[in-house]
Amino acid sequence: MAYTLTSHRYGKAENHIVRVYRDCPRHEIRDLTVTTAMRGEFDDAYLTGDQSKVLPTDTQKNTAFVYAKQHGGGTVEEYALALAKHFVDDVDPIHGAQVDVLVDAWERVVVDGEEHDHTWVRRGPENRTVTVTVDGKGTGQKATVGGGIRDLVILKSTGSEFHDFLSDGFTTLEETKDRILATAIDATWEFSATPPDWDAAYAAIRAAVVGTFATLHSLALQQTLWHIGGAVLDAVPEVASISIVAPNKHHFLYDFSRFDTEVRNAGEVFHADDRPYGLIEATVSR
Amino acid sequence: MAYTLTSHRYGKAENHIVRVYRDCPRHEIRDLTVTTAMRGEFDDAYLTGDQSKVLPTDTQKNTAFVYAKQHGGGTVEEYALALAKHFVDDVDPIHGAQVDVLVDAWERVVVDGEEHDHTWVRRGPENRTVTVTVDGKGTGQKATVGGGIRDLVILKSTGSEFHDFLSDGFTTLEETKDRILATAIDATWEFSATPPDWDAAYAAIRAAVVGTFATLHSLALQQTLWHIGGAVLDAVPEVASISIVAPNKHHFLYDFSRFDTEVRNAGEVFHADDRPYGLIEATVSR
Amino acid sequence: MAYTLTSHRYGKAENHIVRVYRDCPRHEIRDLTVTTAMRGEFDDAYLTGDQSKVLPTDTQKNTAFVYAKQHGGGTVEEYALALAKHFVDDVDPIHGAQVDVLVDAWERVVVDGEEHDHTWVRRGPENRTVTVTVDGKGTGQKATVGGGIRDLVILKSTGSEFHDFLSDGFTTLEETKDRILATAIDATWEFSATPPDWDAAYAAIRAAVVGTFATLHSLALQQTLWHIGGAVLDAVPEVASISIVAPNKHHFLYDFSRFDTEVRNAGEVFHADDRPYGLIEATVSR
Amino acid sequence: MAYTLTSHRYGKAENHIVRVYRDCPRHEIRDLTVTTAMRGEFDDAYLTGDQSKVLPTDTQKNTAFVYAKQHGGGTVEEYALALAKHFVDDVDPIHGAQVDVLVDAWERVVVDGEEHDHTWVRRGPENRTVTVTVDGKGTGQKATVGGGIRDLVILKSTGSEFHDFLSDGFTTLEETKDRILATAIDATWEFSATPPDWDAAYAAIRAAVVGTFATLHSLALQQTLWHIGGAVLDAVPEVASISIVAPNKHHFLYDFSRFDTEVRNAGEVFHADDRPYGLIEATVSR
Repeated sequence: MAYTLTSHRYGKAENHIVRVYRDCPRHEIRDLTVTTAMRGEFDDAYLTGDQSKVLPTDTQKNTAFVYAKQHGGGTVEEYALALAKHFVDDVDPIHGAQVDVLVDAWERVVVDGEEHDHTWVRRGPENRTVTVTVDGKGTGQKATVGGGIRDLVILKSTGSEFHDFLSDGFTTLEETKDRILATAIDATWEFSATPPDWDAAYAAIRAAVVGTFATLHSLALQQTLWHIGGAVLDAVPEVASISIVAPNKHHFLYDFSRFDTEVRNAGEVFHADDRPYGLIEATVSR
Repeated sequence: MAYTLTSHRYGKAENHIVRVYRDCPRHEIRDLTVTTAMRGEFDDAYLTGDQSKVLPTDTQKNTAFVYAKQHGGGTVEEYALALAKHFVDDVDPIHGAQVDVLVDAWERVVVDGEEHDHTWVRRGPENRTVTVTVDGKGTGQKATVGGGIRDLVILKSTGSEFHDFLSDGFTTLEETKDRILATAIDATWEFSATPPDWDAAYAAIRAAVVGTFATLHSLALQQTLWHIGGAVLDAVPEVASISIVAPNKHHFLYDFSRFDTEVRNAGEVFHADDRPYGLIEATVSR
Repeated sequence: MAYTLTSHRYGKAENHIVRVYRDCPRHEIRDLTVTTAMRGEFDDAYLTGDQSKVLPTDTQKNTAFVYAKQHGGGTVEEYALALAKHFVDDVDPIHGAQVDVLVDAWERVVVDGEEHDHTWVRRGPENRTVTVTVDGKGTGQKATVGGGIRDLVILKSTGSEFHDFLSDGFTTLEETKDRILATAIDATWEFSATPPDWDAAYAAIRAAVVGTFATLHSLALQQTLWHIGGAVLDAVPEVASISIVAPNKHHFLYDFSRFDTEVRNAGEVFHADDRPYGLIEATVSR
Repeated sequence: MAYTLTSHRYGKAENHIVRVYRDCPRHEIRDLTVTTAMRGEFDDAYLTGDQSKVLPTDTQKNTAFVYAKQHGGGTVEEYALALAKHFVDDVDPIHGAQVDVLVDAWERVVVDGEEHDHTWVRRGPENRTVTVTVDGKGTGQKATVGGGIRDLVILKSTGSEFHDFLSDGFTTLEETKDRILATAIDATWEFSATPPDWDAAYAAIRAAVVGTFATLHSLALQQTLWHIGGAVLDAVPEVASISIVAPNKHHFLYDFSRFDTEVRNAGEVFHADDRPYGLIEATVSR
C-alpha cells in the first residue's frame, strides 16, 4: 500500500492496581487505574507484523504493578513519572511514554468515634486523575505532568440566573432570575513547574473549583467556568492552564399549575433530566 | 386465549425528583428517584385493551412530583407512605401500591472552613433505599416499610482469612491467613414496627454494617454477613429481618516472583479484578 | 446471637466463558456468562466461619470452564444441567444448585458474499438467557429449566393507541389514536417438559414475541404483553408460563407549533426520552 | 483576572431524535443522537456573564428537532450540514458550528417470512457516527465531513499469532502461533471530497474493515489496523485518512492441566477478560 502511517501508539489500558501500605498498624490504601501508551520505532509492527521492537502490553502491565511497590512511596505523580521514564530510558525502541492514572478515593471508616486502622468505604463519584508524558532520551528528555478531576457533581439551589440571551424563531426558553445550577465538572490542567507538594496542589485546586462554584453569583455556566479557571490559576502558581468541560445538568421546575391542586411550586420541586444537556467548555491560561 | 393472567402490575419508574427546602437561608436538598407500581382491577387493560380503570403512569408521575411538595416535610418514608396510600385510597380500581425510592446523597460543601448555605457535591456510590407497600382499602389496609443500602463499597486490608475449605479435583485455590476483603453491600430490611426516627434508624443500621465489617476478624465473607445481620438486628429493634447480597470483589496478590527483580510483594500490591466474582447471600431474621 | 439464618446461598457470578468449536474448518463460537449458586449445609460457614463444607467459588469457576469442553457438545441448556447436576451429585454438602447463563450473540461476517469460517461480529443488545436449578439427591432429585430473552428493544411506528383511561386531578396526558410504541422486553419462561429442540423452542418463542408485537394493533402495552404471552404459550407447548417486564420507552411528539416556522410535525419527529418510563409487568400461565 | 480565555465553545449534547418516514405504508425510521457545539463571539458570556450573543442551547435543541423534518429527506450527512450551516449563516455571533450525530441502527423485523412495514428491533452494539464542521461566513466558509464506526465488536477464532516480541525482565507472556483475536473497533475518517453516495461510502468502509479483519492472517493487532486503514482508503477514494483505536480484548486459554481431569483444552475454552486490555492506535493517510 502506498499510504502513510501518520501516527501510532500502543499500550495497556486500565490496570486496576490496589496498593496497601502496611508498615504500621494504621494501613493506608491507594487505588489506581493505570493506562500506559508508548510511542517509538513500531512501524514494522504495523507494516510487516514484525514484533521485534514491541514490548508487549502484558509486560507494561507487569511493570506497572511492580513499580507500584518499587516507586510507590511518594505521590501518584512520582509513581507515574518513574514508570514513564523507565519505559523511555530502559527500552530502546520506546521514544515516548504516557501514563494516565485514575485515582479512586477511599474514606477511612469511623467505628465508635475512632478512625479504623484498615477499613475504608469507596467515595465517589469524583476521581482525581494524573497524566504524565516523557518524551526523548538523555539530556533532551522532556517530561510533563498534568492533573485533573473527573465527575465532580456539584449543585447550587440558588444564586444562578439566565436571561437576556439571544433569541430567534426557534427560541422558547423562558428567562430566569433564580434556578438550580448543577454540573459534573471534568477538568484537566497542566503544570509548568513542580509544585512544592502534589497532593496539596490538588487539594487547593479542588477547593478553588468548589469554592468558586458555590460563591460566584452566576449569570451563566460559561461565567462560572471562567471564574473557576481563574481561581485555580490564582490558587496554584505552577498551573499553566486549565480546561473545563461541564454539562448543564438541567433541573426543570415542575409545573403544578396544570393540576387540580392548591399546592404551589415556589422553586422547590424539580425534574432532574438526563438528556439532552447543555455542554460548556473553556480553557483558561496564564 | 384460554390462558390465565396470573399476575400483573404497572407504574412509572425512575421519576428523578429533586426537592429544595428554601424556607431559610440555609437550604436543604433531597434527591429522590421514585418508582410507583400499582396492583388492582386492570385485567381488562390486558385482556381487551380497555383502559377505563387504568390511571396513566403519566398521572402517577405528576402525583409523585406534587407529593414531594405536599408531603415532603417529613422523612422519605413518610413521603412514600403518603404517596402509596393516596393511590390506594383515592383511586378506586387500585388495590395495592408499591413506592420504591432511591436516595442520592449530597454533601454540603465547605468554603473557607464554613459549610455553604446552598451548594453540595454528590456523594456516592452508596445509596439509601426505601420501599413502601400499601395493600387493601379501609380498615383492612396493610402498610409495610422496608429500607436498604445499595452499593456500599467497603474494603479491609487485613483481618480476613480463607482456608480449610472443601476441595475436589477442580480445586486449585490457595489457602490464605491474610487477604484483602472487599465487597459492595446490597442490603434490604423489613420493619415490623415504626422506629422513633427513620433517619436515626438508617444511621444506626449503616453504622452496624460498617462497624461489623471493620471489626470482625473474618474467616469468610459468609461469616461477615451473618454478623452484620445480627448487628443490625441488635442495633434497631424494629428491624424484623435483613437480606444481604455481597460480591466478593477479588483482590489478587500480584506475583512478583516471576520477574527479574529484587522487589518483593509482601501483601502490598493487588490486582483488583472485575469478573467473575464470588456472590454471597444471607437473610438473618429475628 | 439469638437470630436465625433464614436463607443463604453462595456461588461465582459472571464467569465469561468463550467456547470455540474448531473440529472442522468452519468454526463455531459460543459466548456464555455463567453464574453458579449453591444451597446446602453451609450454616457453619456463616455461624462460625468453618469452611469445611464450602466448595470455593474459585472451584465452581474452574468447573464451569472445564464443563464448557466436557459437556459443551449439546445445547446451553444441556451444559447448564450437567454443571448443576455435578455440583449436587458430586459434592456432598451441596443440596441444590442454580446455574444462570447469559448468551451473547455473534453473527458470522460475510466477506465478498461468502460467510467467513472463523470471524464474527457481536450482535446485540438482546441476550438469550438460560436458568437451570437442580434440587435434591438421588431419586427425589428435581431439575427445572427456564429460558429468557433480555433487552429485546423493539419499536413500532404506528398501530398503537392509548385513550379512554381513568383520570383524576393530576391527569394531564392527552389521548392518542396513533403513537410510537417502543419497549425493551425482558421475559423469562418456565418449561414443564423438555421440548424436542431447545434452540428451536427459543427461536419459536422469540418469533412469537416479535410477531405479536408487530402485528397486534395495540390499545396499551398491557394488552400487547398479554397477547405476547398467549402467543408464546401457543407456539411452544412445553412452556408452562411466561413473565414479561416491559418499559414503555416514551417517544414524545416534538411540538413545532411553538416555533416561528411553517414546518409541521405530522407524527414524524419524536424526542426519545430516557426517564421516567412506564413499566408494565405480566405473567401469563397455561 | 489577568488570565486568557484560550478557547471556548458550548452547545446541546445528546438530543435523542427519532424520525419516522410515513409517506407510504412501508415506514422508515432514523434514530439520531445529535450534539451541537458553537464557536464565536461568546467571550462576554464567560467574562462578564453577558448573554446577549448567546443562542441558548435550548434553542439549538429545538432547531435540531425541526431540521430533522425540514432537512431530513436526505442522508444524515446532509441533515448535519444543513443544521451546522444554519447556525453559522443565520446567527450572527456564531462563527463556527460542529454537529456530531450518533446513529442507532434498527432492523426491520420479519413476520412469517415477510418484512414488516412499521416494526423494527434495535441492532447493536455498533453505531455509525457523522461529524460535520462549518467554519466562517460567506465565500470563505469551510465545511468538513467526517464519519465513523463505534464499538464494532469483532472476533476471529484463529488466524492470529503473536511472537518474537521484545522482552525484558518483566516479560512473562508466552508466544503463540494461534490465538483468538478480538477487538471493538472505534474508527473515524475524514472525507476530502463528497462521495457519490454517503450511505454507500459507509457500507464500503464497513465492509473493508470487517473483510480485512477476517481475511488478514494477523501477526499483531497493529498489523491488522494498518491493513484495515489501507483497505478503507482503497475502497473509498474520497476518504483522506482514517484513525483507529482498538482494544485487544484478551481471551485467555483456560489452563485445564491444573485439574484432576482427562479433559484437555486444545484452543477451545477461553476466559474473556475485561480489564486491563491492550489498546492499539493508528492513523493511516493517503
